[in-house]
Amino acid sequence: MTPKQKLAIAHQLERLGVDIIEAGFPASNKADLETVKLIAQEVGNSAASDDGHIPVISGLARCNKNDIDKAWEAVKYAKYPRIHTCIATSEIHMKHKLKMSKEQVIEKARTMVAYARSLGCKDVQFGAEDAGRSEREFLYEVLGEAIKARATTLCIPDTVGYNWPREFGQLIADIKSNTHGATNVVISTHCHNDLGLAVANTLEGAFSGARQLEVTINGIGERAGNASLEEVVMTLKCKGELLGGLYTGVDTKHIAMTSKMVEDYTGMRVQPHKPIVGANAFSHESGIHQDGILKNKSTYEIMSPEDIGIHRFNEAGLTLGKLSGRHALKAKLFELGYNFDGNELNQLFLRFKSLAEMKKIITDENLITLVSHKVSEPQIEYYQA
Amino acid sequence: MTPKQKLAIAHQLERLGVDIIEAGFPASNKADLETVKLIAQEVGNSAASDDGHIPVISGLARCNKNDIDKAWEAVKYAKYPRIHTCIATSEIHMKHKLKMSKEQVIEKARTMVAYARSLGCKDVQFGAEDAGRSEREFLYEVLGEAIKARATTLCIPDTVGYNWPREFGQLIADIKSNTHGATNVVISTHCHNDLGLAVANTLEGAFSGARQLEVTINGIGERAGNASLEEVVMTLKCKGELLGGLYTGVDTKHIAMTSKMVEDYTGMRVQPHKPIVGANAFSHESGIHQDGILKNKSTYEIMSPEDIGIHRFNEAGLTLGKLSGRHALKAKLFELGYNFDGNELNQLFLRFKSLAEMKKIITDENLITLVSHKVSEPQIEYYQA
Repeated sequence: MTPKQKLAIAHQLERLGVDIIEAGFPASNKADLETVKLIAQEVGNSAASDDGHIPVISGLARCNKNDIDKAWEAVKYAKYPRIHTCIATSEIHMKHKLKMSKEQVIEKARTMVAYARSLGCKDVQFGAEDAGRSEREFLYEVLGEAIKARATTLCIPDTVGYNWPREFGQLIADIKSNTHGATNVVISTHCHNDLGLAVANTLEGAFSGARQLEVTINGIGERAGNASLEEVVMTLKCKGELLGGLYTGVDTKHIAMTSKMVEDYTGMRVQPHKPIVGANAFSHESGIHQDGILKNKSTYEIMSPEDIGIHRFNEAGLTLGKLSGRHALKAKLFELGYNFDGNELNQLFLRFKSLAEMKKIITDENLITLVSHKVSEPQIEYYQA
Repeated sequence: MTPKQKLAIAHQLERLGVDIIEAGFPASNKADLETVKLIAQEVGNSAASDDGHIPVISGLARCNKNDIDKAWEAVKYAKYPRIHTCIATSEIHMKHKLKMSKEQVIEKARTMVAYARSLGCKDVQFGAEDAGRSEREFLYEVLGEAIKARATTLCIPDTVGYNWPREFGQLIADIKSNTHGATNVVISTHCHNDLGLAVANTLEGAFSGARQLEVTINGIGERAGNASLEEVVMTLKCKGELLGGLYTGVDTKHIAMTSKMVEDYTGMRVQPHKPIVGANAFSHESGIHQDGILKNKSTYEIMSPEDIGIHRFNEAGLTLGKLSGRHALKAKLFELGYNFDGNELNQLFLRFKSLAEMKKIITDENLITLVSHKVSEPQIEYYQA
């Protein structure tokens, strides 16, 4: 994304009502630093959303002074600036990537959190990269040291998407119980989707006490991406009570637009069956489902497109195809201005079925041709080419 | 999909080693009946896979004689034929869609399972549609009656994708404990993905005692689709021990090819960040991740592309972009036949960064141009247009 596009997305995230925007990794390159700075200045100080809510603007930094300096240089213009500094704590990362001992990692974590605080940043998040595969006792120790050095939030990433929900929920619960000082900080989830479990892991983390959930629009991110904002948010909206009364301040009617912007700017298209924001998420093809939807929407819909800001052009949201039944055909024809019943509808339905066996989707135009044909030459099955 | 394509997919599913193929809904239209019959004849009798394994061929039917007759007409040619008959059991579906009382639904379930058995079908699956929202005591009763009528498998669908993992796992556990005769039949999951939880729900169902998991290739299906085979299978392969020793006989090296066939035949493209089979599922863009992968793959990969049958063209699986570091650039250049170090590499890296700020992906050709340029005119930053 260009800096201009990133800024537009940040404005949109503010409208959406997110609490924190992790705007970039300022030490990675100059453009990123400038973009994070711009977002801090323009989005981290205004109040575009209806309730005057101003999001925290966070910048990522590895545990070294240069990264932290660069992050601070970018975020300090925000009303609520945050530095998010992280270091890996799993044996495999420490040994092969960092080539550091446990003691060295603890020392880095402690001194770099303290360094970030010393710059004047009152909100410092410490992330234990690959926490999902880290040795527990060591993890509690590193996190406890970060808290002592005055970290305000602890990020617990399942960096490689290796946890399953029970495991990740237990990890969060264990950290809360065993880390010295954990009750005074916010625990955050950061789940990757390599096994398709990022959303469930995030929710289990929240259920187990995490109070910050790191998510991405459309679930984009490294490899198979991260937990998707829209899936996590809509689950909280639909099921919050069952999840122990959890709630979110996100204004869901901005979800569809935000998703579309991210798709357009990144070129990362979501698949038709992507939950919540995919093109088919609210469409019903099979006859059994269409029949139910026409009788009562709640038979096959647990939320409505309007909830995420989509105005449904075709009120019933039906797609006609070869699994569609008589009832859906009648309704669609009625929409087009025709009213068929009894034997006439039955005849038309048979012709519709032959056509549908050859075409996946039957358009309005196809139907009109079908009807005109019925009226003029009812005996000829010209679709059976 | 055309009948020919469906047959090809069924052959491929057999190679993949699935236990059961639900081949279609024979009563929905004549072409579907013929296709299911063809699959029963050609795939349900052969033994294309290495171990001579022959899958069960199942046909869907609502709880009425016509549907069941059509299903049997199609599947009876298989060595292991199955009829899957289903009826909705949630209040909302019974009241608005079926317009039937609880007693009528029980009567239908009992008599139609018995009818399917009476045709000579030894393997009858009964499905309680919308089980995820059904009243518990009533659900146990319907399922118990289906067992008495000699159903062999009970399908428990979360038809509208409304459950979350703890809830769905509990549902399966409760059915096992409270349904009369449940210990003598197989319990099956069938999870929809409206909230992005289908895979986690399926796994929780398995953990709670389900021994048949209904999944689809690429997770396609009504609305936001169903639990995806590849995500469920790879989680079982990676985490089976933690999931109580669960395992699957699926031969994962056929996953990539099966996914591709379904994409091509249905036109339903998977998104780049789709877990397991998406184009980016095994690619690493950020510098931190690339550095780790180059040092040791297991730092950021929990499975390899080879596991699902992908031969990795670029061994490290790296994509160069603006977040890439020096180490990844050096490795990529080495692959292209260049060996740069020290100051020379640093100079090249700076030029690479300016280019990367303007282009999302740096191709091999871009790099070659960059290197040639470096050699001939090292002082001119012509990429800064």
